[in-house]
Amino acid sequence: MGTEPRITGRCLLLAGGPIGDYAALRPLVRPGDFVLAADSGYRHAAPLGLTVDLLLGDFDSLGTPPAGVPIHTLPVEKDETDTLAAVRLAMRWGCRDFLILGAFGGRFDHSIANLITLREIVERGGRGMLADDRTRVHLLRGPETIRLPRMEGWSLSLFSMTDRCTGVCESGVHYPLDGYTLEAASSLGVSNAIDAAEARISLESGILAVIQAFDGNPS
Amino acid sequence: MGTEPRITGRCLLLAGGPIGDYAALRPLVRPGDFVLAADSGYRHAAPLGLTVDLLLGDFDSLGTPPAGVPIHTLPVEKDETDTLAAVRLAMRWGCRDFLILGAFGGRFDHSIANLITLREIVERGGRGMLADDRTRVHLLRGPETIRLPRMEGWSLSLFSMTDRCTGVCESGVHYPLDGYTLEAASSLGVSNAIDAAEARISLESGILAVIQAFDGNPS
Repeated sequence: MGTEPRITGRCLLLAGGPIGDYAALRPLVRPGDFVLAADSGYRHAAPLGLTVDLLLGDFDSLGTPPAGVPIHTLPVEKDETDTLAAVRLAMRWGCRDFLILGAFGGRFDHSIANLITLREIVERGGRGMLADDRTRVHLLRGPETIRLPRMEGWSLSLFSMTDRCTGVCESGVHYPLDGYTLEAASSLGVSNAIDAAEARISLESGILAVIQAFDGNPS
Repeated sequence: MGTEPRITGRCLLLAGGPIGDYAALRPLVRPGDFVLAADSGYRHAAPLGLTVDLLLGDFDSLGTPPAGVPIHTLPVEKDETDTLAAVRLAMRWGCRDFLILGAFGGRFDHSIANLITLREIVERGGRGMLADDRTRVHLLRGPETIRLPRMEGWSLSLFSMTDRCTGVCESGVHYPLDGYTLEAASSLGVSNAIDAAEARISLESGILAVIQAFDGNPS
């Protein structure tokens, strides 16, 4: 790498988890996204119609680096996952907005690590979404508000990532909340549904995970 | 239900998530397990060679209850998941030890809710493990110690479920820890490996998730 790039827009980060339905994710892609592939996440680029701006990794899972792609090599022995390393690099280059694809559906420990990566983004003042074709996760850091449109067949769940979240409000949903203190130990916020055109979710303090999941199959 | 049963041994709870390889889970089953099926988790009983002692659910996903099985019906509109309702019932009946199968691999919000269910078990003085064929999750509540045997091809990851876990020690592994304070925001504990015959993991305070994941595929 020569001069460090500046990322003024959103970083679209390709993580290594499996993606079942690429077509479902294409609408999330925006022209102008800086496309950063973390190691084996590189394989998602072509099916999504993306040109990779930078490939980052230790190549423990991808094997030989592909030709003709800018590459940043990471050590194999390190204290961070490839995805977290990619986020830290992009934040160093000015990025504060992330869409991370391929974050779920592989190893459960990797899914949790990706959730923690998103947590680091919001704790450092950025924002982002983790997504695969049947899951979307936003983290809110109080005080914050988000509005989410109703999506047919998708559920909506809230979980506290901190010991508790205070002042949690949820409206436009089947089971609304108003100024609720949601403990990390509580699954009260699971499997809600958006009834109105959009849901409005807010909290006063803490870090709140807002998970939308496609419920195509009975479960 | 007439007289409430007493569960003096372990409860094997069948949750609704998919199970890919039943044969891999059969060794976890013990004769004498009280087999409790949560709604659509019932479908896992036959492939695991289990007779269901009690089927619990709102039958929103299973449809018509099967004949010849003791049934406890839950309301469809409730503040807890079927799995959590099953755990609370079993704890009321004296159970303090749980093996929960089918806890992963379905909707990500359900996986997180199952993790929170296990948290409720340990916070109430019980213990348990969540498992599917490629994932095993223990939660430790400090002060506590666990020993885990090495399993070929499985990784070992630690995450704090509370804002922090103090005094975390991990030995017999590639990246050991000694008296470490693991923050919930840290993914430092991810993707370790057991080097010795067994790993020893302990903590002083907090709730620690210990996740073993099979790494059969590069990721």
